[in-house]
Amino acid sequence: MAGTDATKPSLAGGPAIVLVEPQLGENIGTAARAMLNCGLTDLRIVRPREPFPNRYAVAAASGADRILETARVYDGTVEAVADVQRLFATTARPRDMVKPVVTPREAARLLREAEARGERCGILFGRERTGLTNEDTVRAHSIITVPLNPAYSSLNLAQAVLLVGYEWFMAADATPPTELPLGGTRLATVGEMEGFFGQLEVELDRAGFFPTEAMKPAMWRNLRNVFLRAQLTEQEVRTLRGMVSRLAGTRHRGRGDV
Amino acid sequence: MAGTDATKPSLAGGPAIVLVEPQLGENIGTAARAMLNCGLTDLRIVRPREPFPNRYAVAAASGADRILETARVYDGTVEAVADVQRLFATTARPRDMVKPVVTPREAARLLREAEARGERCGILFGRERTGLTNEDTVRAHSIITVPLNPAYSSLNLAQAVLLVGYEWFMAADATPPTELPLGGTRLATVGEMEGFFGQLEVELDRAGFFPTEAMKPAMWRNLRNVFLRAQLTEQEVRTLRGMVSRLAGTRHRGRGDV
Repeated sequence: MAGTDATKPSLAGGPAIVLVEPQLGENIGTAARAMLNCGLTDLRIVRPREPFPNRYAVAAASGADRILETARVYDGTVEAVADVQRLFATTARPRDMVKPVVTPREAARLLREAEARGERCGILFGRERTGLTNEDTVRAHSIITVPLNPAYSSLNLAQAVLLVGYEWFMAADATPPTELPLGGTRLATVGEMEGFFGQLEVELDRAGFFPTEAMKPAMWRNLRNVFLRAQLTEQEVRTLRGMVSRLAGTRHRGRGDV
Repeated sequence: MAGTDATKPSLAGGPAIVLVEPQLGENIGTAARAMLNCGLTDLRIVRPREPFPNRYAVAAASGADRILETARVYDGTVEAVADVQRLFATTARPRDMVKPVVTPREAARLLREAEARGERCGILFGRERTGLTNEDTVRAHSIITVPLNPAYSSLNLAQAVLLVGYEWFMAADATPPTELPLGGTRLATVGEMEGFFGQLEVELDRAGFFPTEAMKPAMWRNLRNVFLRAQLTEQEVRTLRGMVSRLAGTRHRGRGDV
């Protein structure tokens, strides 16, 4: 059963992120940061050029140290993913390999589906500049290719991890696309809006804002729409009522003073 | 009309990316790279700490130099976005500001809609670590907040630009979620698959692969499913037919040699 084998990491940390032959410790550190940004915690490193852990990795990982602390180092790609049941390889679209190529978004969907079935997943990332070898790419079930600007698509290691991790995170994220944070207040009711409009209309009439009675209906409709479009809160309606009272009072006082 | 005013950049380069008070030239360079990755070209910089352009920015932009070459520097945020009609601010969820908060994905949808109407858009990115001031955030129509791991959500400048730009790029990208690149070949037809299965069944029968006639139907069904699940190409079917012929031939020869 998934997650009950103590020798294996739990699925909660998401797919294993497997860095194959990373050249610079700094890139391992920034990749670890990108992982933690996305809630990924299972880092595996195959034949790093510099001994790992090293101080460059730790310095670059600032705040994501625990990803490095639990990272495991392997002598070969096969050893690193021996327990993985769904293996993805991130690479440019291969020329002569008949293997499914998916977008990061589709990969995220497949990863979440697989995880829901208790399957262990992993994603291979190749070394800086040269990427994955054909030998490692062939081992994967599917290829992930990020469809960015074809004229300039080079991503560094941490950015590639970030985009794939971001999609994985988003695939289970419940944040509503749009939200209006209301703090301690709430949206105004139609009744409150009508109360404000009643006050405003009286004051505008008194102030002679509407040039003619014939022009008033359209002008008044447009003005109301400005405030309705703003989706006011109850607090803002009170503020506006105060503003109108004060402006009108100033005008009255102003006249009286003359 | 959109795009006909020569004093304004065309909409083709996407929303203006406005870096407010960036502290390090290097971060301007990496942000420029992230922009070009996503097909964004309109870079605007407000009060950079170091004189711009500078060699750190150029070095970090490797390959994205033309973004820096056309970048414009401003003394204030208002000047930088004076022509913008839809302004977004990237920042953490504001505490006491009633302003729509959108995900990068929703922002991308809104940006593409606005661009289709010919509206000029811009996105403010604050300085490293401290982010945007309230004063600048207030100017925006909406807030973009990236919903990442709440326990560790700090992104550097280039990563924030990359995620927002990636969503903008993806919102108009037509890459199919999954693709099976076929090179010069094509998927096998049912007729070709049946031809292969016919050959394989004959050879397996000859070789005594099926222990009993009673067990054969289920075994044979399962074996066929392996090959059907793989969605073979016409070329692969021919390769498999050759493989079966050769294996069978070897076995026959092997017997003859005894």
